[in-house]
Amino acid sequence: MAGDGSDQRALQYEQTLMYGRYTQELGVYAKEEAARLRESGQRRSVRDRSRTLDLLEYDKGRCAKCRRSGYPYVLEAPAQDFISVCTVRCQKFLISRVGEDWIFLILLGLLMALVSWVVDFCIAICLQAQKWMYGGLDSNVFLQYLAWVTYPVVLITFSAGFTQILAPQAVGSGIPEMKTILRGVVLKEYLTFKTFVAKVIGLTCALGSGMPLGKEGPFVHIASLCAALLSKFMSLFGGIYEEPGVTGIKDIGLIGMKNESRNIEMLAAACAVGVGCCFAAPIGGVLFSIEVTSTFFAVRNYWRGFFAATFSAFIFRVLAVWNRDEETITALFKTRFRLDFPFDLQELPAFAVIGIASGFGGALFVYLNRLIVQFMRKQKVINKFLMKKRLLYPALVTLVLSTLTFPPGFGQFMAGKLTQKEALVTLLDNRTWAKQGIAEEFDYIGNAQAWRHPQVNVFVTLVLFIVMKFWMSALAITIPVPSGAFMPVFVIGAAFGRLVGESMAAWFPDGIHTDGTIYPIVPGGYAVVGAAALSGAVTHTVSTAVIVFELTGQISHILPVMIAVILANAVAQSLQPSLYDSIIRIKKLPYLPELGWGHHEKYNIRVEDIMVRDVRYITLNCCYRDLHNVLLTGQLKTLALVESAESMILLGSIERAQLQSLLSQQLGRARRLQYIRERAVEEKKRLSIVSDPASDDNGSQRTSQEVRFQISTEESSFSPTRPVPHKPLKPALKRPSVVERPTELPTSPHDHSGIGLKNLFCSSPDAEALEDDEDVEDDMTIREIAEWEERQLDEQVNFNNCKIDPAPFQLVERTSLHKTHTIFSLLGLDHAYVTSIGRLIGVVSLKELRKAIEGSVTVKGVKVRPPLASFRDSGTSSSENETTELHKLWDRHKSMSLPRESTPSESEEKSQ
Amino acid sequence: MAGDGSDQRALQYEQTLMYGRYTQELGVYAKEEAARLRESGQRRSVRDRSRTLDLLEYDKGRCAKCRRSGYPYVLEAPAQDFISVCTVRCQKFLISRVGEDWIFLILLGLLMALVSWVVDFCIAICLQAQKWMYGGLDSNVFLQYLAWVTYPVVLITFSAGFTQILAPQAVGSGIPEMKTILRGVVLKEYLTFKTFVAKVIGLTCALGSGMPLGKEGPFVHIASLCAALLSKFMSLFGGIYEEPGVTGIKDIGLIGMKNESRNIEMLAAACAVGVGCCFAAPIGGVLFSIEVTSTFFAVRNYWRGFFAATFSAFIFRVLAVWNRDEETITALFKTRFRLDFPFDLQELPAFAVIGIASGFGGALFVYLNRLIVQFMRKQKVINKFLMKKRLLYPALVTLVLSTLTFPPGFGQFMAGKLTQKEALVTLLDNRTWAKQGIAEEFDYIGNAQAWRHPQVNVFVTLVLFIVMKFWMSALAITIPVPSGAFMPVFVIGAAFGRLVGESMAAWFPDGIHTDGTIYPIVPGGYAVVGAAALSGAVTHTVSTAVIVFELTGQISHILPVMIAVILANAVAQSLQPSLYDSIIRIKKLPYLPELGWGHHEKYNIRVEDIMVRDVRYITLNCCYRDLHNVLLTGQLKTLALVESAESMILLGSIERAQLQSLLSQQLGRARRLQYIRERAVEEKKRLSIVSDPASDDNGSQRTSQEVRFQISTEESSFSPTRPVPHKPLKPALKRPSVVERPTELPTSPHDHSGIGLKNLFCSSPDAEALEDDEDVEDDMTIREIAEWEERQLDEQVNFNNCKIDPAPFQLVERTSLHKTHTIFSLLGLDHAYVTSIGRLIGVVSLKELRKAIEGSVTVKGVKVRPPLASFRDSGTSSSENETTELHKLWDRHKSMSLPRESTPSESEEKSQ
Repeated sequence: MAGDGSDQRALQYEQTLMYGRYTQELGVYAKEEAARLRESGQRRSVRDRSRTLDLLEYDKGRCAKCRRSGYPYVLEAPAQDFISVCTVRCQKFLISRVGEDWIFLILLGLLMALVSWVVDFCIAICLQAQKWMYGGLDSNVFLQYLAWVTYPVVLITFSAGFTQILAPQAVGSGIPEMKTILRGVVLKEYLTFKTFVAKVIGLTCALGSGMPLGKEGPFVHIASLCAALLSKFMSLFGGIYEEPGVTGIKDIGLIGMKNESRNIEMLAAACAVGVGCCFAAPIGGVLFSIEVTSTFFAVRNYWRGFFAATFSAFIFRVLAVWNRDEETITALFKTRFRLDFPFDLQELPAFAVIGIASGFGGALFVYLNRLIVQFMRKQKVINKFLMKKRLLYPALVTLVLSTLTFPPGFGQFMAGKLTQKEALVTLLDNRTWAKQGIAEEFDYIGNAQAWRHPQVNVFVTLVLFIVMKFWMSALAITIPVPSGAFMPVFVIGAAFGRLVGESMAAWFPDGIHTDGTIYPIVPGGYAVVGAAALSGAVTHTVSTAVIVFELTGQISHILPVMIAVILANAVAQSLQPSLYDSIIRIKKLPYLPELGWGHHEKYNIRVEDIMVRDVRYITLNCCYRDLHNVLLTGQLKTLALVESAESMILLGSIERAQLQSLLSQQLGRARRLQYIRERAVEEKKRLSIVSDPASDDNGSQRTSQEVRFQISTEESSFSPTRPVPHKPLKPALKRPSVVERPTELPTSPHDHSGIGLKNLFCSSPDAEALEDDEDVEDDMTIREIAEWEERQLDEQVNFNNCKIDPAPFQLVERTSLHKTHTIFSLLGLDHAYVTSIGRLIGVVSLKELRKAIEGSVTVKGVKVRPPLASFRDSGTSSSENETTELHKLWDRHKSMSLPRESTPSESEEKSQ
Repeated sequence: MAGDGSDQRALQYEQTLMYGRYTQELGVYAKEEAARLRESGQRRSVRDRSRTLDLLEYDKGRCAKCRRSGYPYVLEAPAQDFISVCTVRCQKFLISRVGEDWIFLILLGLLMALVSWVVDFCIAICLQAQKWMYGGLDSNVFLQYLAWVTYPVVLITFSAGFTQILAPQAVGSGIPEMKTILRGVVLKEYLTFKTFVAKVIGLTCALGSGMPLGKEGPFVHIASLCAALLSKFMSLFGGIYEEPGVTGIKDIGLIGMKNESRNIEMLAAACAVGVGCCFAAPIGGVLFSIEVTSTFFAVRNYWRGFFAATFSAFIFRVLAVWNRDEETITALFKTRFRLDFPFDLQELPAFAVIGIASGFGGALFVYLNRLIVQFMRKQKVINKFLMKKRLLYPALVTLVLSTLTFPPGFGQFMAGKLTQKEALVTLLDNRTWAKQGIAEEFDYIGNAQAWRHPQVNVFVTLVLFIVMKFWMSALAITIPVPSGAFMPVFVIGAAFGRLVGESMAAWFPDGIHTDGTIYPIVPGGYAVVGAAALSGAVTHTVSTAVIVFELTGQISHILPVMIAVILANAVAQSLQPSLYDSIIRIKKLPYLPELGWGHHEKYNIRVEDIMVRDVRYITLNCCYRDLHNVLLTGQLKTLALVESAESMILLGSIERAQLQSLLSQQLGRARRLQYIRERAVEEKKRLSIVSDPASDDNGSQRTSQEVRFQISTEESSFSPTRPVPHKPLKPALKRPSVVERPTELPTSPHDHSGIGLKNLFCSSPDAEALEDDEDVEDDMTIREIAEWEERQLDEQVNFNNCKIDPAPFQLVERTSLHKTHTIFSLLGLDHAYVTSIGRLIGVVSLKELRKAIEGSVTVKGVKVRPPLASFRDSGTSSSENETTELHKLWDRHKSMSLPRESTPSESEEKSQ
């Protein structure tokens, strides 16, 4: 199960698993892998490779069709295309209903309710099985112990192993990752089907073991996974998930924006569903997910969360009714406190004390958890040993924890017999236990008996429970299995509240209320307050108050709960980051931290202080070789397009994929075949007109680079001689004026766009395209091809068919860090160009911003891509493959070792 | 009480009051008023006026001190200034504690709880008085009727008259206005002390009359008023409300941003407090206020709302306990439904029906309300009559409504005896009334008796109640008094729910549950669902569900309520805008509408299509006369600073107030006195050196404009000859480099900055300044002064001491409307410059954006200023006064009719 593969890589994996540290290593591995493939593939024929390029081009044809505005390609399309357009539209109209938001949300809610219920059901069976085993072996304590300990160890080990093998990303809570993803940074591998399976099964096993782990964090992740997969699935049906094409929308970048924004909204709703169906708490779910995952929240997205979470919670509870677990739909942990006099005004100080103490406790919990992780990381010896045996750590921890809770052993002093759920139910009980301290005859019914011990007081049991569970939970959530911390913390908080409540009850046996009726103190109410306060302190949220009301089905303690939660938050937030932020830091996730108003020194930092001045850019008059170089060196998603290297006037930005498509088009097989065809025609023509020296005027151009000239004229209206100093910008980027357009149109390659259109509307373009190409024979040798490609690379790039975003986000150099941070947070940017009087002088990305805010350089740059790109456009997103492809191309050139003339203008550009 | 003043103005006022239409008329009136003053003041001496200018300058000295970065004025200050700096700092440290957010929020919560409680108390007394009067006169029905009718008529008429006289802005709910203000548009007069007083007293009287009006909308407004006034009050103590000066913060514009952002956050919290202390519903209050007022919500602001609303709700309920109204803190409309089986699963369809019907009902309510307003506006005859007698409309409506509810009359069929609160309490009762249809002996206790009528069924009573109250409420909220619609709608919803519930109870007398125990249907639960659904439908919010839980103190019906609310919202949102959006449209408030994803045609619009191309700008080398002209013609808050009229390179933006300060400084008395002094010195010098022709080199400059030259050298490093073609930008705007700074510093006016410093730290600068000036005699004649001012106006502007925002928000011409809308919404912009390669080509403001989205031009431009500017910097914000001042100045020049040479460069600029 472990140990094979290179040691180094295993260690890295181990680290990922062990402490959930997100590192660049996977990406490095991918690159190494690509390099290996490249080397091994070096011996494949050049012809094969260019065919690959061709296919690549066709794959992208659809995308590349999203041409520049007002491009009248429909008019150029043949008649049958019109029919297909109509058919497609009709189809779209029918299918688009399926893609509507509310259907998506209902499906999501239904699915998640089912998943939640099934997981709960399985967990219950697992726990029952353990009880049954333990109960059946009551003749022999040792056997009992073995059964008690082995069962969770096996389950946790299986969970850890399974998760690790299938999808290491499923480890942990998932909320930190969702927070990062919703911020706009894609952690691609966190939203795959594998992760979904690993998370669901891993979670079921982990919780079935009875360890102090929670369900709620993983459910946020599972719901997001569900949404991502559902979105992917529904995009098969088309609807609004469809890429644009015939809608006639001018701004192409907008569709991406729309999809992106919609996906973010759906993911946010999914987070709400996750909490909602986990606790049957729709309102609390929505609020908790907002507080935990968002920085800025769009109110228009509000109803989505409510709708989906309510539906999900409803189905979740209805399943319970249908399964005869419940008579009707009620709260998960229903309480029965009295309604007429829930608490006295004079009890409020006690509630406030619970709040403040919970604040300190919550901060301590976060600190303790981080301490454990850091301790394990630092201890080299332990570390190395555990790395080798990667399932040892989970097994060991589980062994220790389950040994301590063994009911006949130490467990008898801390209600070790009870499962988390049972413990919570007993803690929220509306009867008072402390009476037992005075009157022994008080009847502990059912599970509440576990809290009673013949020798020790119930107070001691509670204190032991709190202290033991506290560090046990902090330790348990470091086990590399899918698990959350909310529920354990909630139970500890409830126990703490109960402790205070019981103390109060013992102190004031007849209640505090002085005049008239006796209203005894309800310790269960204190437990509710404590649970909300401690979980609020750990997660830095206020909405745990709402969750608590929905969980207990009673809202009578609203003011004590609110006061305690707010106090707990105030204390905890001033001491420690929230558990999720702490995990983000531990895992080194690429999250943009908050910038408080308090940091005055941040106001002094300007964009010019943090921006990267060495911007990767392409010029309007660059050649394909420059494009190639830029693509090989940089990693940014988009590249800046400037007028020229001298002026540096920013014209727009182009997506990397677009450029790659341009390049592969230029070097593709189709072009080469066309070249061959033209060469043949040219050859023929030259033979026929060799005696006719009429075309003398442009002979000067033709003398040196004959072939190149011919292709150039066909290709664009740009003059082939470069560099062109200070070319007017209008024709390339401004809205096409009526005067200039006609001069460009006739020169645009008709046949190309024709193929493209066919590609767009026909199901199998490859066959046709190949058929189209078969009339010429590819008789070029490898060396000829290389020479041809060299010439192609020296040509000037034709940006006509390229999607250019004409309005990339710009800042000026004096924009303050604070403003930049606000703009980045609000708009979810990943980078912005810095311009000075229209001149591009730098670029700021999330990375620089994060560095500037944190004042550190520890955070490694993780690939920054638009959110959900991974499951939105699976066809074009594999940028690594393309890079590899380009690498191959490049290496081939190197290996051919053609003497390449160094272009002076290029070196000039680089030096600037 | 009415009728005096010009008829035209009265009519306008009437219109404002009658239908709450927000028009520009007030501003027009202010301008007319200013013109009148100007004319009458024409005969005052010039000397007086320049003294006014001087004082104006001193007032602004503090602000003008916020100089450019790193200005080492502290080093130049005398020693006693150091001491004062220290003292000020110590003071600041002590006082800054006062300015902390949580203290502000506690004060706000406390204040609002008190206001809410006092208002409630007064309303209760008013209603009791009416009952007492009505009850005491039971011998004579006519007298009873008179008492029943006169009382509300008098109260409403008083409320309307009082509000109208004191602050017409207090009319209505206030939520639409808060929505607009939180969007970033200032409706200045909506946040004044007068409005506060008018709103509180008007609301108390209006609700005391017993009309179907609500408290919640006005309370949102009152809380915001409270926050605004509290903020103003606390700024007297300094703290973070203080303008910057010694904090060493580079970016001055940032402080404004910070303050603005903070004020917006505080206002948002205040809205939450408003709802929270009105219903004792902190969570619902926060959510409701977010849903109703925000588009994008900053989660970091979340806790503020919770904190303040919880504190406020707590105090509000504690006051009730202290007043012996309650035994302990409980919900406002506590229900006592059974906990163990709140509802059966099979009852859910009935709840869904309530939801859908409420959706239609809510849309109908909004439509009906708009219809009434539009009908009243269109009927010219009624309109004119009502305009003349402005209090007649409220009185008439009140008369009709109270006549209909007269208990011995029609009121007996619709529980007319009950106040709104009593009706709600009885509707939420957990007993079933329908039994009475079968068994007559059922005991209606207390107020519930009002629903029983000897002749008619309880169902008829309920139906009549719903139908009558429906149109009565829609009519009542058009009365020009401070009033909300939430509570009336809530009661109607509860009645509708009760109706359905009673029907269900009559249909299934033994409940639906089949196996075992009999669980009778609880009609009160249906009432809760109906109340939440209808109020949710009218306001388009989901959070009414939470409010309902907090109001009733029970959350057991969470799923039915959520389902009904979501269905009601889905139906209502597809039919009509929310009540608040409807009022925004009726009142024509400057609110930016939402842009749905569905409007594909919007994607085709770009910024270049909607932008205003005729931008008001100033150039770096303009003279004061240009400044003057620009200030006189434009109304924009900030002006663009461009390099030159030829290049149009955008350098930054300058606030209007800054420019006005520059201009008044240039033309101020201090400068003139200095000029006189220098002229005297010059005169003396010339007499002494008349025989010494040493300074020949700069004689050419001195020949024509001797005096001007001297002033110029004193003033700045700019050469006085203009226009300066293509001046390098660096020294003016870029971060001051070390090389250039020393050349500028020695020429800066030492004495001026000295005065400024004194002004900053001393309490009474005027005395000193006057003393300073008294050593020269102002012996210039009016004509001389006018000439001098003419010369001053021709000088080039020195922007050195001017706050320039170096990074105003920029868009490019191809930015789509959608992106623009998103950016404007997210960042709360009011305008953005459109640049093309750094050149300013246009400006887009909220107005253009709104027009483009609405496709209409009906919305008149309301003055767009940053939020809360009205109470933030009261010293510098009186732009109208300053404009008047400038107008005066200008008119004086005109009246003096000096031959003014036309500068060719200026006309050149204008022609471009």
